[in-house]
Amino acid sequence: MRLDSARVCSCARPTTPGGQAGPRPVRTSCCRQLGLVLYGLRGPDQIGDWPVDVAALGPFLSYKSSSTTFACAEPHRPHPPRATQTPTTTTMTAGQPLRTEPAQPQRLRHSGPPALHAAVVPSYPPPESDSDESWVWSQIKAEARRDADAEPALASFLYATVLSHPSLDRSLSFHLANKLCSSTLLSTLLYDLFVASLAAHPSLRAATVADLIAVRSRDPACAGFAHCLLNYKGFLAVQAHRVAHVLWAQSRRALALALQSRVAEVFAVDIHPAAAIGKGVLLDHATGVVIGETAVVGDNVSILHHVTLGGTGKAVGDRHPKIGDGVLIGAGATILGNVRIGAGAKVGAGSLVLIDVPPRSTAVGNPARLIGGKKGEDVMPGESMDHTSFIQQWSDYTI
Amino acid sequence: MRLDSARVCSCARPTTPGGQAGPRPVRTSCCRQLGLVLYGLRGPDQIGDWPVDVAALGPFLSYKSSSTTFACAEPHRPHPPRATQTPTTTTMTAGQPLRTEPAQPQRLRHSGPPALHAAVVPSYPPPESDSDESWVWSQIKAEARRDADAEPALASFLYATVLSHPSLDRSLSFHLANKLCSSTLLSTLLYDLFVASLAAHPSLRAATVADLIAVRSRDPACAGFAHCLLNYKGFLAVQAHRVAHVLWAQSRRALALALQSRVAEVFAVDIHPAAAIGKGVLLDHATGVVIGETAVVGDNVSILHHVTLGGTGKAVGDRHPKIGDGVLIGAGATILGNVRIGAGAKVGAGSLVLIDVPPRSTAVGNPARLIGGKKGEDVMPGESMDHTSFIQQWSDYTI
Amino acid sequence: MRLDSARVCSCARPTTPGGQAGPRPVRTSCCRQLGLVLYGLRGPDQIGDWPVDVAALGPFLSYKSSSTTFACAEPHRPHPPRATQTPTTTTMTAGQPLRTEPAQPQRLRHSGPPALHAAVVPSYPPPESDSDESWVWSQIKAEARRDADAEPALASFLYATVLSHPSLDRSLSFHLANKLCSSTLLSTLLYDLFVASLAAHPSLRAATVADLIAVRSRDPACAGFAHCLLNYKGFLAVQAHRVAHVLWAQSRRALALALQSRVAEVFAVDIHPAAAIGKGVLLDHATGVVIGETAVVGDNVSILHHVTLGGTGKAVGDRHPKIGDGVLIGAGATILGNVRIGAGAKVGAGSLVLIDVPPRSTAVGNPARLIGGKKGEDVMPGESMDHTSFIQQWSDYTI
Repeated sequence: MRLDSARVCSCARPTTPGGQAGPRPVRTSCCRQLGLVLYGLRGPDQIGDWPVDVAALGPFLSYKSSSTTFACAEPHRPHPPRATQTPTTTTMTAGQPLRTEPAQPQRLRHSGPPALHAAVVPSYPPPESDSDESWVWSQIKAEARRDADAEPALASFLYATVLSHPSLDRSLSFHLANKLCSSTLLSTLLYDLFVASLAAHPSLRAATVADLIAVRSRDPACAGFAHCLLNYKGFLAVQAHRVAHVLWAQSRRALALALQSRVAEVFAVDIHPAAAIGKGVLLDHATGVVIGETAVVGDNVSILHHVTLGGTGKAVGDRHPKIGDGVLIGAGATILGNVRIGAGAKVGAGSLVLIDVPPRSTAVGNPARLIGGKKGEDVMPGESMDHTSFIQQWSDYTI
Repeated sequence: MRLDSARVCSCARPTTPGGQAGPRPVRTSCCRQLGLVLYGLRGPDQIGDWPVDVAALGPFLSYKSSSTTFACAEPHRPHPPRATQTPTTTTMTAGQPLRTEPAQPQRLRHSGPPALHAAVVPSYPPPESDSDESWVWSQIKAEARRDADAEPALASFLYATVLSHPSLDRSLSFHLANKLCSSTLLSTLLYDLFVASLAAHPSLRAATVADLIAVRSRDPACAGFAHCLLNYKGFLAVQAHRVAHVLWAQSRRALALALQSRVAEVFAVDIHPAAAIGKGVLLDHATGVVIGETAVVGDNVSILHHVTLGGTGKAVGDRHPKIGDGVLIGAGATILGNVRIGAGAKVGAGSLVLIDVPPRSTAVGNPARLIGGKKGEDVMPGESMDHTSFIQQWSDYTI
Repeated sequence: MRLDSARVCSCARPTTPGGQAGPRPVRTSCCRQLGLVLYGLRGPDQIGDWPVDVAALGPFLSYKSSSTTFACAEPHRPHPPRATQTPTTTTMTAGQPLRTEPAQPQRLRHSGPPALHAAVVPSYPPPESDSDESWVWSQIKAEARRDADAEPALASFLYATVLSHPSLDRSLSFHLANKLCSSTLLSTLLYDLFVASLAAHPSLRAATVADLIAVRSRDPACAGFAHCLLNYKGFLAVQAHRVAHVLWAQSRRALALALQSRVAEVFAVDIHPAAAIGKGVLLDHATGVVIGETAVVGDNVSILHHVTLGGTGKAVGDRHPKIGDGVLIGAGATILGNVRIGAGAKVGAGSLVLIDVPPRSTAVGNPARLIGGKKGEDVMPGESMDHTSFIQQWSDYTI
């Protein structure tokens, strides 16, 4: 009884949440009893064999029930067919390539251009004539299309999370809402909250784009912008934090703290909503990062997992570290108290830092010592991600 | 098709899980196809336009389906209306303030007292004439009402999790069950388990209250008792652990271990059910805390995130640390083996402790050194949360 | 309105996902409105009162809707009745023992052998005449039966996750799929993916068995094979990683990275799919473990929580540690760069290692020093789990 080959369900018609029928509504009752994925959505402009306004479908995707996910067996194809092909009915097997079978002759023909190759995805930096945001968003869509073509098992996910959305902030809002929702904090509520916050604060969107570019350019393991957007929990935690920070500034503190709590549970990243985080920030791996209420993190900072920017415990008020621009903080470093880590400084992995670190210097050890500066360098360690050069000199390894 | 303004659904009627209809049952089928939130519950005493016994509704809230959450657009208001207002039908927008529209004249009038101000919430300590438990519970409800009034986006959550429950232990059981349930471990089963355990063991309830007071008095970032109850994963992990500890003592070991596993996944806090944890305990941030099978943690202990109370590996039997009353253990400290950390001792952040630490002394470093005592002090570090005073003296920072 | 005693629902009939009816299909619509558990499945050979082919039911269990879980009030009993008992209808209360009530006389008689005692579970090592896989699987089933008999609250979970499956790889695939699925990554897709990967790669199944034996023989807190299979997030993270590693080798990189991301979120264990992990590996507690793209971990290695096998940041290409066979890495150790940790070496808790560690030697401290070898020993520390013997000598504790 495995779903070896679920045919396109021609009776599938969406019923719009408001009760108004779409152009040709899908009756979801036909399959939802079975917990199946509906494969009725074939592309941007048809459901089953009926033409449909895809703009009306986009929001529908955010209203999913657990037993019915509206999935597209094939991702959005923006161009008209290049060549007429033999009509087929597309079938989909979970985790296996698409197969095609001869279709009923009277059905609409289905065809499309070949999958995008990785080579068509241009490399960074973007052309100067284009805005970073639109360039990054076009890259993400191209990567998502390429992956959906190559991996049918992800096509539904990529369509619902990236390809069905008109902009980066909608896609991010949808993805974050799905990650952070719970049985008592609905994804629709979170989606609306994120969309509204990102729309009202262009600086949040610019910071998102700067973060995406930071991750892609600094992490050798990052496979692309879409990889970061979809899979980096540190990136997602920072985006949710920025919305919580806006709510905190608006005195919507209960909601900000609820968001913080969900981020801490889902991503194991605990950032107080009052903390100020710059742009172009990379939280790599991110598990266990803790950033306290009065901490400040500058621009272009890179923070590895298990890093704590904590208080000293007894103080109230301004009691957390201030991290300058371009700082690199290694895995497991603990920085406590209202200390200043100067611009371009580097804190070694596993260090315990309780006093100020001057700009462009390196602190290592438990307790941390300063072991040298890098005054001649142009590139900040938060961007070069050079974790070890000075640390290795200091490491006095003996047998 | 966004839910800009979902009207009260007058056809909404709950069908009770047992099949018996409530006083005026809500038919949930009318909207559940759409994955919408029903806004039919207006307050403690009416569903749609029908009067209802709110006590009969409380348990219903714990039986939720994924596509239907019974939400209340406005939280429980315990007092009669102060003034007659123009009749309105309340509408709710996710993430936005409540709006009101002219209602049908024949409908029941809806009105209520103004929102509680923060100022009406009295401060700690409680009046001596009152029990800690009832005082803390009344504070939590007052805070939840204030937040629900100020933040409609949280009203459903706060009503379902706090305001609809008759007692702290019911609210906590509901919240924990929602957090820890999975597709194979149902929330109803967990809810019944927590309620039964808390009812049978008053010491568990007293420890919960002591923990809440500990968090509020020790953590400057704690915004109130409700903040701790709802959002502190360390607090929730400890409460779930205490129930697992009771199950372990009753030789219900498989269930105790299943609970441990869910807590480790959901909160990233791994406490063996056999470990004994005192009361008035604060696990701050809590990510990555590991407490082994034969560990003992005293009363009024504060433990930061990433702390390990681990075994030495080769030993079986009694092989984990014993933490005295009033101890403070800093972030990332690792204490291994059957060692004793004396009452009032302090272990610095990032320390590795392998031998006993005398009472009221401070251990820091990797491996840890003892760097001084605090014999003259009255306040235990586990309560004062003084992380750094002796640690800073020891830190030999050189450039 | 608590579910004190949910009767067997005699109308329950499964409708197969493909739309074909089973031998006697269960209509799920009768109860799904109520969010109840159906208790219609009585054992391996009947649904309600109808005989059924249990093999046809197994896969069905992987198609669950959130409001309906097909649960078995009593676990699979492989033997014929030993004695005729008074016919009963079994009822089940969440969190409470099974109760029986007089059944309709015309119904089939229900009876079975007494519960397995812990004593009937033979101890390791397995008889040489038997394969490790079949022996471990028989142990897991025996433990699950014993636990389901002793703890009715877990009977549904144990039946759905262990006892209804014909083999270890099916049970593991079902359990992993339930843990890692999300609203956009369906459990059915993941189940099919895991089943197909484990079927195609017998070495993955052998590694799973070696891991189970490793955990049971090395961790004094491990209560049995089923405990490890069901509850150890480090074990589950490694099994999911091995499937991601296979996908990576097949150039299905987007899916491999999506799996890595889900494992990082759900288990807080972040292993790049390109990393190579040996067999007989124990990730104890596991929270916060990070293993980079070009890392290699040998056989019979034990790694505690918060361990990082990380890059140096600036390098691309081969930039992560190589861990030899039989190595033990203590909690919170950070190993950075393309360094070699020789076979049988030991890295102390909280150490920061930046250079090679020779075989059979011990490295401790921040930065790590080598403090002695163990050339005369037969047992590798990764198997003996001896964390502290040399570390304690090195620890210069002074007051």
